[in-house]
Amino acid sequence: MNEKFSQLKSQLDRAYALEAACTLFNWDQYNAPKGSIENTAKIIGTLSGEHYRALINDDVRRLLEELSTDEGLKDLSFHERSILKLLNKQFHKLSLIPPKEYEVFSALIARAYPVWETAKNNNDYAAFAPVLDEIIAYAKKFAGYSQKPGQTLYDAALDDYEEGFTTQILDHFFERLSTSLGPLVKAISQKQDLIDTSFLHKTYPAATQKDFCHFIAQYIGFDFNRGMISESEHPFTTQIHNHDVRFTNHYYENSLDSAIFSAIHEGGHGLYEQGIDDDITMTIAGSGTSMGMHESQSRFYENNLGRSREFWTPIYDKLVDTYPSQLKNVSLEDFYRAINASRPSLIRTEADELTYPFHIMIRYEIEKAIFEGTVTVKQLPDLWREKYKEYLGVVPDNDTEGILQDMHWSGGSFGYFPSYAIGSAIAAQIYHHLATVMPLKTYLTEGRLAPIREYLKEHIHRFGKCKNTQEILKDMTGEPFNPDYYIQYLTQKYTELYNL
Amino acid sequence: MNEKFSQLKSQLDRAYALEAACTLFNWDQYNAPKGSIENTAKIIGTLSGEHYRALINDDVRRLLEELSTDEGLKDLSFHERSILKLLNKQFHKLSLIPPKEYEVFSALIARAYPVWETAKNNNDYAAFAPVLDEIIAYAKKFAGYSQKPGQTLYDAALDDYEEGFTTQILDHFFERLSTSLGPLVKAISQKQDLIDTSFLHKTYPAATQKDFCHFIAQYIGFDFNRGMISESEHPFTTQIHNHDVRFTNHYYENSLDSAIFSAIHEGGHGLYEQGIDDDITMTIAGSGTSMGMHESQSRFYENNLGRSREFWTPIYDKLVDTYPSQLKNVSLEDFYRAINASRPSLIRTEADELTYPFHIMIRYEIEKAIFEGTVTVKQLPDLWREKYKEYLGVVPDNDTEGILQDMHWSGGSFGYFPSYAIGSAIAAQIYHHLATVMPLKTYLTEGRLAPIREYLKEHIHRFGKCKNTQEILKDMTGEPFNPDYYIQYLTQKYTELYNL
Repeated sequence: MNEKFSQLKSQLDRAYALEAACTLFNWDQYNAPKGSIENTAKIIGTLSGEHYRALINDDVRRLLEELSTDEGLKDLSFHERSILKLLNKQFHKLSLIPPKEYEVFSALIARAYPVWETAKNNNDYAAFAPVLDEIIAYAKKFAGYSQKPGQTLYDAALDDYEEGFTTQILDHFFERLSTSLGPLVKAISQKQDLIDTSFLHKTYPAATQKDFCHFIAQYIGFDFNRGMISESEHPFTTQIHNHDVRFTNHYYENSLDSAIFSAIHEGGHGLYEQGIDDDITMTIAGSGTSMGMHESQSRFYENNLGRSREFWTPIYDKLVDTYPSQLKNVSLEDFYRAINASRPSLIRTEADELTYPFHIMIRYEIEKAIFEGTVTVKQLPDLWREKYKEYLGVVPDNDTEGILQDMHWSGGSFGYFPSYAIGSAIAAQIYHHLATVMPLKTYLTEGRLAPIREYLKEHIHRFGKCKNTQEILKDMTGEPFNPDYYIQYLTQKYTELYNL
Repeated sequence: MNEKFSQLKSQLDRAYALEAACTLFNWDQYNAPKGSIENTAKIIGTLSGEHYRALINDDVRRLLEELSTDEGLKDLSFHERSILKLLNKQFHKLSLIPPKEYEVFSALIARAYPVWETAKNNNDYAAFAPVLDEIIAYAKKFAGYSQKPGQTLYDAALDDYEEGFTTQILDHFFERLSTSLGPLVKAISQKQDLIDTSFLHKTYPAATQKDFCHFIAQYIGFDFNRGMISESEHPFTTQIHNHDVRFTNHYYENSLDSAIFSAIHEGGHGLYEQGIDDDITMTIAGSGTSMGMHESQSRFYENNLGRSREFWTPIYDKLVDTYPSQLKNVSLEDFYRAINASRPSLIRTEADELTYPFHIMIRYEIEKAIFEGTVTVKQLPDLWREKYKEYLGVVPDNDTEGILQDMHWSGGSFGYFPSYAIGSAIAAQIYHHLATVMPLKTYLTEGRLAPIREYLKEHIHRFGKCKNTQEILKDMTGEPFNPDYYIQYLTQKYTELYNL
C-alpha cells in the first residue's frame, strides 16, 4: 500500500472505531435502562467529539492534500481513490462545523430519543416541542455551514442524504406523482369494499410472528451468522460492519402483515449492508451509497418482490400452517389482494404502496417550511393535520398518530424523508431492469431468491459508497434515475387490483 | 474547580468514554452475531489503543506532576485527590506497557471469548490451548512490566486485583482455611444422606425462573431503572456508569437454586456499582475498590444473607406459589437445609459455601505454577484433575467440567480468583460487624432489606475507589482484614447443619 495512504488509513481506522462505538451506543439505547440516558448521552457526546477530532485534524488535512495530486493518486486502487474522494467531501463538510457544537449536538440527539418516545406514548407533543426546537436550530445551523451559493438551506440538508436531488428536482418529482397518482387514489377510495382485509386483523401471537419474521428474513437471504434481529418501537437497520448487521422489528398482535413486511423491508436494508465488499467495510466507503439507494433495496424487497403473487407462491402454505385457524379459507389470491389494499391512512410505515408517496410529500413540504422559517414548532401539529386533510383526506385525532409518529426528527434527520420516495422510484426502475435480464417471476415462483440477491450484490451492494446513486443506476440499467417506471408500476398494479 | 485539575478532568473524560465503549462492546458480544467477532475485535483493539493514548500522554504526565505538589493539591477535594492518587498509580503501571502491545492484547481478548465458549461446549481443550498460551504470554509479560524488586511475577499480577495481598499472605490464608475447614469437609462427606436436595432438581421452567430472579434482584434493592439483566453462559456484572449496571444470568431447567443464587450474587455486585457516588461515577474512581471487596458484596448477599433462614422467611411462600407442584411438602427448613447442603463437587460456581474456598485454592495454586513456569498449557488439564482429587476427592470426567469451566483466563484475568476467597472472608467480617450495629436478623425476617443496603452504601459503596479495602474495613469495623470471622462463620453454620 502507498505509504501516505497507509498513514491516512490508520487515522481513518481510529475514526471508524469511534463511529462504531457511537453506533453501538445508539443501538444499545433501545434496551438500556431508562435511567441511564443522561450519563450515557455525555459518553456519546465525548465519543462523537473524539470521532470528529480523529477525522478533522491537521495530519488528515496534510495527507489529503498530498494524496490528492496526480503523483499521490498514482498507485491507488479504485477503492482507495473512492475513499479519498469521500473523505475530501466529508472533511470539507465537517471542518465547517465547530467541534464543540458537533459534540453538544450528538449529546442532544442521544437525549432526544427517549423524550420523543415518551411524548409519542403519552400523546404529549408539548413535551417534545422544546427538544425539537433545539434540534431544528442545530439542523439549520449545520445546513447553513455547508450551504453553497444558489442553494436553499433545505437543499443543503437534502444533500446529506441524496447528493444532487435539490428542491427543484423534488418539487417536480412530487408534482408528477401527485398529478398521475392523485386521481388513482381518489378512484380507489370509492371502491373500498372490493378487498377484504379483515383477516389481517385477527389475533396473531407475537412469538409466532417473531419466528415467521426470522424465517422470512432468512428466506430473502439475510445471514444470521452476520446479523441479528431485535425489537424497538420503530423498526430500523444499523451496522457495526458488514459482518454485524442488525435490524429491529415491532410485533402487533392484531396485525398479520405489519411485522412481516417490516422484516422484509429491514431485511432488504440488511442485505445491502451484508453485501458490502470486505475490502471497504469499516471504512468511510463501507456502507450504502445514499439513503435513496438504501430505501430502494428495502422497498424493492418489501413491495416489488414481497407484495407480489409470485413471492408468496412457494411460501404461502407455510404462513397458513403457522396460523391455521386464522387463515382458514383465505386463499393466496385473497392474501395477495389484502396485503396490497389501498386506503388513505394516517401512519406512514403502515401505508400501502400507492398512498405511501403522499405521506412523504407531506413531510417534504413541512420540512421545506421549517427550513424556510414559515412555520414554528408550535404550529407544526396543525400544519400536519392540514396537509393530511388536503392530500389524503384523513385527519389524525391525536399527535401520536400525527406528527409524533416518526422518530427521524428526534435524531436530527431533516432532508431524510424524500429519500423514501426516491427509493421507491429507484426500486421500480430496478424491478423493471431485472425483469429484462433474468426470469424474475420464475425465480420468485420457484423460491429461488439467491440469483436476485447476487445480481444486486454484484451491481449495487458491494460498491458501498464507491459509486454514487446515479453511477450505479447508469452502469446497471443504462439510464439515470427515471421516475416513469414508478408511476407506470403503481398505475398498472392498482388499475388491475381495483378493476379500474 | 482547580484550573489544572479541570484540564486533567477533560482528558480523563475522554479516556472514560473510550473505556465505556470497550465495556459496551464486551457486553454486546454475548448477543452479537457469531460471525462478527473478527472485525469487531479490530474495533475493540483500536478503541483500547485510543483509551491508552488518552490516558498515557505527555499532557497527562505534565498535569499529574504539576498537580502532585503541595501547591497543586491545595484546593482539591477528597474525591479529586483520590482520582489523582489512582491516576498516578495507573499512569505508572500503564506507561510501562507499550501501546501497541496493549492494543494487540485487547484484540486477542475479544477474539478469545468465543473460542473458549466453543471449546467448553465441545469439551475441546485443544482448541482453546493455543489462545490460552498467547494470553498467558501477555499476562506474564504485563506482570513483568510492573513487577517490583522482591515481588514474584504472580505477586505483580495479584496486585491488579487486590492491592497488598501477596503470595506470602495468601499462602498463609489458604493454609489456615485448609487446616481448619479440611476436617469439616471430610466429616460432612461421611454424612451425605442427612440432607435431601432432590427437589432442587425437579423441572423448573426457564420463564418462571427469570421472573423470580427479577423479583429477587428487586427485593434486595437492585434498581431496574438503572440496571438490567441479560443472559450469558457464565453470569457476570458490568457497568457503563452508576446509572447503567447490568448483570447476566443462566437458567438451568433442572435446577431451582442455580439461577436464584446467581441473581442474588450478581445483584450484590450490582448494588455496589449502583451505590457509587454520582460525583465520581464516570471517573477512574467510579467503581468498586477491588475485586475482593466486590466479591465481598456479592457473596455477602448470596451467602451470608441469601442462604440464611431469616432471608427466606418473608419470601419463601412466594417461591412455593411460583412452583406449587414442585415444592409441595417442602418446608422452609427443608429448603434452608437443601440450599446449604455441602458436597465436594466439580463446578466452582455451583459449589456450596464450605467447599467453595477449596475451588479457589486449586486455581490459586495452578496460577502460581503458571507464573512460576513449572507447568505448560498442555499439562494444565492433568494438574487440574490432580488438585481436585487431592483437595476435594473428586475428578472431572471431561474438561468442560474441569479446566474449561471458568471464563476468567480467556479474558486475561490471572490473579483474579483469589479475590473470591478474600471476598468471602470479608463478607463474613462484615456480617459479624453488621450484627453488632443493627438488628440484622429482625430486618431480614421482616423483609426490610433497605437499612442493610443503606448501611453498605454509606460505608462501602459510595466511595468507589476513593478508599481501598483495608481503609474501608478499618473505618467501618474498626479492624483490618481478619479471616477468623470467616472460619468461625463456616464452622458454626456447618457444625449445626450436620449435627457435628
